[in-house]
Amino acid sequence: MQFVAEGNINVLDFISSKLRAINVFATSEWKNRYQKEIHGISITEIDGRELSKISTLKTAPEVVAVFAYPKVQKIDWHKTSGMTIMLDDIRDPGNLGTIIRTADWFGIRQIICSEETVDAFNPKVVQASMGSLSRVNLQYNNLQNILKSKPDNLPVYGAVLDGIPIGKVKKEENIIILIGSEAHGISDKLLKFLDKKITIPTLSERGAESLNAAIATAIICYEFSRL
Amino acid sequence: MQFVAEGNINVLDFISSKLRAINVFATSEWKNRYQKEIHGISITEIDGRELSKISTLKTAPEVVAVFAYPKVQKIDWHKTSGMTIMLDDIRDPGNLGTIIRTADWFGIRQIICSEETVDAFNPKVVQASMGSLSRVNLQYNNLQNILKSKPDNLPVYGAVLDGIPIGKVKKEENIIILIGSEAHGISDKLLKFLDKKITIPTLSERGAESLNAAIATAIICYEFSRL
Repeated sequence: MQFVAEGNINVLDFISSKLRAINVFATSEWKNRYQKEIHGISITEIDGRELSKISTLKTAPEVVAVFAYPKVQKIDWHKTSGMTIMLDDIRDPGNLGTIIRTADWFGIRQIICSEETVDAFNPKVVQASMGSLSRVNLQYNNLQNILKSKPDNLPVYGAVLDGIPIGKVKKEENIIILIGSEAHGISDKLLKFLDKKITIPTLSERGAESLNAAIATAIICYEFSRL
Repeated sequence: MQFVAEGNINVLDFISSKLRAINVFATSEWKNRYQKEIHGISITEIDGRELSKISTLKTAPEVVAVFAYPKVQKIDWHKTSGMTIMLDDIRDPGNLGTIIRTADWFGIRQIICSEETVDAFNPKVVQASMGSLSRVNLQYNNLQNILKSKPDNLPVYGAVLDGIPIGKVKKEENIIILIGSEAHGISDKLLKFLDKKITIPTLSERGAESLNAAIATAIICYEFSRL
């Protein structure tokens, strides 16, 4: 399986993460500028006009590359020692990419997506992840099976609308955070696996019904990073 | 000036906020279901096939409406008593919509956008704001002029990459938070107005270069809401 990465940050991050570059299309200026970073990798030189034809972006980047999918890493409940994010049917590519980028910022290395979650190698996700996809172990799996077989001493926290205010939750280091879908939250079949239900309190008096899924994930990552 | 709102939450929130509905197109089922909420408003009944033609969404909603732009409120430095968000050239409609939704969640009522910020009544912004646009005072203005004329005792906090870690910043209630653009951060001409530079610390060792602008805004709003 192969996917497309566009623009400097994404392409250089995937190259430096040792992912196999199958084709790299770039301007000759780009090739000269990054000689050191792309040493040993074959580049097809094309001009800006051609790049704008193959790019999905509004403003054509100087480089577009095709990579082989990374190997799926085995789930690691031990070495990870930190938060694992589980995503229950996140549908929006921008949300998924932003969650990956945010997880990377907070040093989270493991993301497990339900099988209905949008494809992480969709160009919009790759773009929104801004290179972070190259630094996070991400896999698709049946979340029910994973939650049944995880170690007993690993608690599952879930973001819901009527849980304990997140500032009052005792923080633990090695946990799973389960994030529900944009439209439906955490699905019924997974709710029973939650050890702690947490909520980001609202200060709105006449207000918003919920937070965006990527925003909620980010605030939780931030709060737990303050351990 | 007029704008389009699509789907239940957005349309009902704008109607309840007393914005003037110029045209409302909905299925007869929708009209019957929300009789109470739409009392006194004239609805044009159309079917799902017609709605899918006028909608910008992948899945056609049951209602699409045209509203008159709200009146721009005067900036209120006193009654607001709380945070004002200033946006310096946010370009992505999804980011702006998400920032509006998040501000609403945390009870923030005033957002001032630079003139280069994407139009808040762009259908993608309206969609991402999930009705919150009806509850937040938002205006476009020259940020330099605003910052020059704001009250002296109102401090300006800015999100930068090398500021004080946000957890260590003494929190104040009545402040301005300045958020820079996705690509360039806070512009040079505005940096000199900052009283405090703040940063969301990263835990990544080989990591992400920055956070998404809407994510950074949300974490700041969350942290300051814990006052």
